[in-house]
Amino acid sequence: MNMASKPFFHGRLIAIGGNEDKAHELVVLKRVVQEVGKTEYKVGVITTASEEPEQRGKEYHQAFNTLGASGIEILNIKKRAQANDVSLAKTLEDVDLIFLAGGDQLRLTSILGGSRILEAIQNRLEAGALIAGTSAGAAVFSDTMIYEGRSEEGLIKGRVLTTAGFGFVENIVFDTHFMTRGRIGRLIQIVTTNPTSIGVGIGEDSGVVLKGDGTVEVVGTGQVIIVDGSDIVHSNIMDIEPGGPIAVENVRIHSLVNGYGYDFKKRRFLTPSS
Amino acid sequence: MNMASKPFFHGRLIAIGGNEDKAHELVVLKRVVQEVGKTEYKVGVITTASEEPEQRGKEYHQAFNTLGASGIEILNIKKRAQANDVSLAKTLEDVDLIFLAGGDQLRLTSILGGSRILEAIQNRLEAGALIAGTSAGAAVFSDTMIYEGRSEEGLIKGRVLTTAGFGFVENIVFDTHFMTRGRIGRLIQIVTTNPTSIGVGIGEDSGVVLKGDGTVEVVGTGQVIIVDGSDIVHSNIMDIEPGGPIAVENVRIHSLVNGYGYDFKKRRFLTPSS
Repeated sequence: MNMASKPFFHGRLIAIGGNEDKAHELVVLKRVVQEVGKTEYKVGVITTASEEPEQRGKEYHQAFNTLGASGIEILNIKKRAQANDVSLAKTLEDVDLIFLAGGDQLRLTSILGGSRILEAIQNRLEAGALIAGTSAGAAVFSDTMIYEGRSEEGLIKGRVLTTAGFGFVENIVFDTHFMTRGRIGRLIQIVTTNPTSIGVGIGEDSGVVLKGDGTVEVVGTGQVIIVDGSDIVHSNIMDIEPGGPIAVENVRIHSLVNGYGYDFKKRRFLTPSS
Repeated sequence: MNMASKPFFHGRLIAIGGNEDKAHELVVLKRVVQEVGKTEYKVGVITTASEEPEQRGKEYHQAFNTLGASGIEILNIKKRAQANDVSLAKTLEDVDLIFLAGGDQLRLTSILGGSRILEAIQNRLEAGALIAGTSAGAAVFSDTMIYEGRSEEGLIKGRVLTTAGFGFVENIVFDTHFMTRGRIGRLIQIVTTNPTSIGVGIGEDSGVVLKGDGTVEVVGTGQVIIVDGSDIVHSNIMDIEPGGPIAVENVRIHSLVNGYGYDFKKRRFLTPSS
């Protein structure tokens, strides 16, 4: 399979940049529910990323109640032991939507990685359920997942830490809270170290709906920034030690807003009419 | 005169991104003095941008003393009346280096704009003296000067406020404290509204040495980001109201570090060897 035809993702996924409106207009969450595509639907919410899982669980319970869910399972999984609980995993068996709440993505991967719960999530994805994640819950979609890196050190070699994510998508690295936290340097470092990856920086109250044809559509009130390193000519990444500042030539940036899109296979900006 | 041959700047200029080391290694300030090119040199420091001009003046007095200046004039001009003081302007008549300290660039333009002091600065620039500025003191180099705009609103139409700067350079917009304050959105908005402008975002303790041939060389411990909008294909800037999020296709970004450069006329990245 050559690069060009390699699928970047399969299954139905929505990645959200964090801090989506859960109580007023619910623009992004409404779109999530619309993508589920059923008048009767069940949702499973996983709050593992959060340090306040109960509070987060309540907020999403209320939001999905408002949005007419016929069943809502809140899974406040806090430890690996629970992550391997067969009866908990079973509760996900018939959900139409799995929602990964925000917090720290390293909690998600270190607690759920290789667990029955993650297996159940993957099974639902393969069976056609929709998986949506916000903030940390979107960061884990990537195969290479950023879990640490101060914005102002984004272009310092080695200061953006990554590990394996859940790998729902390939060769795409999601970053979130992108505009509020000024994180573009992190994604420039990622594409400089390997231009195969495409950086997707999602702003708050905004998201990308991933489609089966390798394109995404942007939804919400903010922005999504695409960082494409395929035109990079020169960089100093091999010449400097960790801690040194990165030089790089020709990083291509796009800013997308509601209705715009991006084609990952062709690396092409899509206007609302295209 | 066509665009391609239009000079972007003439005269000897060094723009610094703020917070340059003034007490230890003095990497950037040493380079400033080296560019003056004289063993005996006099410097005039203008602290107008600062809200603590006396304090700032003392720091630079000490720094330039360390760096062997034979004469140091600190001009703590706080009001327009002083800015038109003929005897103060006279003190700049024989300086080899004028240093514009940091603070708020709107203080610099609103206090010094159209004044005798600014005229004296321009006269020195034309007579071959070196003008260096840091932070606000570099922002004023531009003809279009950014003076306000929260980083996270950089890509919201109308939230990056500009006015006329001192215009030492044309079609270049400087921004400073660039990495620490995550300001890339501001420059993307600038080049989206008019791709003639080239955005130059200077990191702290870093600077660009502007050369007569339309190139710059980077000096210091951090980075300089070039934002080039000449490949922009599509944007929504005409279609949205102020307050709306900006979509834009194909902004070209370069990251430069010490020894690297950029050719403004050819819009070309320069490696240390080129």
